[in-house]
Amino acid sequence: MSSSSSFCLPATATTTAIVREVGLRDGLQSLPVVLPTPTKFEWIDAAYAAGQREIEVGSFVPARLLPQLADTDALVMHAKRLPGLTVSVLVPNLKGAERALASGADLMLVPLSASHAHSLANLRKTPREVVAMVSQMRAARDAAGSAMLIEGGVGTAFGCTLQGHVQQEDVLALMQALLDAGADRVSLADTVGYADPASVRRLFEQARHIAGDQLCCAHFHDTRGLGLANVLAALDCGVSRFDACLAGIGGCPHAPGASGNVSTEDLVFMLESMGIATGVDLGKLLALREAAGRWLPGQPLHGALWRAGLPTTFPSHAGV
Amino acid sequence: MSSSSSFCLPATATTTAIVREVGLRDGLQSLPVVLPTPTKFEWIDAAYAAGQREIEVGSFVPARLLPQLADTDALVMHAKRLPGLTVSVLVPNLKGAERALASGADLMLVPLSASHAHSLANLRKTPREVVAMVSQMRAARDAAGSAMLIEGGVGTAFGCTLQGHVQQEDVLALMQALLDAGADRVSLADTVGYADPASVRRLFEQARHIAGDQLCCAHFHDTRGLGLANVLAALDCGVSRFDACLAGIGGCPHAPGASGNVSTEDLVFMLESMGIATGVDLGKLLALREAAGRWLPGQPLHGALWRAGLPTTFPSHAGV
Repeated sequence: MSSSSSFCLPATATTTAIVREVGLRDGLQSLPVVLPTPTKFEWIDAAYAAGQREIEVGSFVPARLLPQLADTDALVMHAKRLPGLTVSVLVPNLKGAERALASGADLMLVPLSASHAHSLANLRKTPREVVAMVSQMRAARDAAGSAMLIEGGVGTAFGCTLQGHVQQEDVLALMQALLDAGADRVSLADTVGYADPASVRRLFEQARHIAGDQLCCAHFHDTRGLGLANVLAALDCGVSRFDACLAGIGGCPHAPGASGNVSTEDLVFMLESMGIATGVDLGKLLALREAAGRWLPGQPLHGALWRAGLPTTFPSHAGV
Repeated sequence: MSSSSSFCLPATATTTAIVREVGLRDGLQSLPVVLPTPTKFEWIDAAYAAGQREIEVGSFVPARLLPQLADTDALVMHAKRLPGLTVSVLVPNLKGAERALASGADLMLVPLSASHAHSLANLRKTPREVVAMVSQMRAARDAAGSAMLIEGGVGTAFGCTLQGHVQQEDVLALMQALLDAGADRVSLADTVGYADPASVRRLFEQARHIAGDQLCCAHFHDTRGLGLANVLAALDCGVSRFDACLAGIGGCPHAPGASGNVSTEDLVFMLESMGIATGVDLGKLLALREAAGRWLPGQPLHGALWRAGLPTTFPSHAGV
């Protein structure tokens, strides 16, 4: 083999990465159908059996707002039975945080939108009000003696369909504010598919500089086809956890035009092909993808791998 | 703005790139319909009006094999009227090279498949026989006193559906052999969508080391969703010319499962978003993409940008 010193290899040679499944939350919340709870159990079990060890199972929002996610409590309880699975939930407000604490989830993700317009539309709070809320959540968590992690997720970090440009300085300041308010870790999200590999590198470089390993995750939508290229750019910056949705379902009901998270199966395929271990069995994941087609008939599913199948040369096919 | 020195920015900071349209050849050859010649004229004119300056208009193959490309002579003649347009054609054999020389095309692309199995299936020649043929083409070109460039394109460079693994050493040796045989320049193609960003970086780094600027182009298929991530990886290696097909049409009739080149509009969008100038007007390109939908009813079209539209923050939208 040739020398590994290269003018084009990234400085950071990541060897393992985590693909966090957010299809049950970010995916299902944008679809008009309500998946039955037993089917969600099946999904969680199959994702676990395929090797996924981090799953966002739902959101503690009022059921009248998102009936698709009304069974989050039951999902947490079910998922917590699976050894070694990190079970996360999205939490938009204090009431939700209390429910999350009571549920026994391992992590609660608190979304903050760097775009004022999107923040008001989506959360009915300004970004700074969300930061203040995180302080209260941290106090509640500590008062409860809970070990549940608090992740502050800065969304619309690369721009917003409502507001337009979002300044990198604002994103970084809000990220820092979340950490100061007591978030255990932070993540950055391209909620509406406005990021490109250059802007990803610019922002994540700075964000890593500020937050170090507390910057734990990148969340990309594939709205304009750049999802996996953006993952690659973030990977080059040392990010090693990525949100993804089975079959690329997802979007944001309050961000017109936003559609489709990075597809879990395509992302795992890219990482594994690159020699970056995810712990996920792609054969089992593709079987789950097929099940998603049966569970969500008529819904827009995305991704490319399921159609073409694995290359005959794919590592796990060795010896087949 | 922050410092541009970064641990994650690529060493090569490319500021311009060329997107070579190959939809009229690689795209149309895999579709079962024959686009009328006047429609192809319209396509070429519209691509030129949108700013594209390199177009592969067809292939000099027997019309009975690819009736879709039987009008290549007329297309070259038409395209050559457009000032500053580099008109290329694909040429699989000596007879084709003679036709290319007579046509007045600016460049002929001679495909060589690094996979023996694919080479025999696609070209009925071994890779080394193709190299020998390139020597004869070079002699014919020189004897004719023609300025037409000869590009040797090494295909199945990342693996093959028929043969499986393709050794990097073989790809590099064949690339060198093409240059030794008199090709003016060489390119590398992932004919069947087996490449990933890590293998792209490994191969292109070595290829650049050997061929320098004579390595002129990267050709990726989006079969498994990694097309644009692979472009980014090649870009990081200093490659600045990429083949692409309008609406992501394309594939290879002799490589089962291969489908869809990188979509021109998504690729231009990624590059322009990154601040890499392509000279292409995305609004005009998207209008052409729409026309392709009318020209090719019922055919599988791909790409994401056409559905979501440009971000409101996209540079060319400034001031709109």
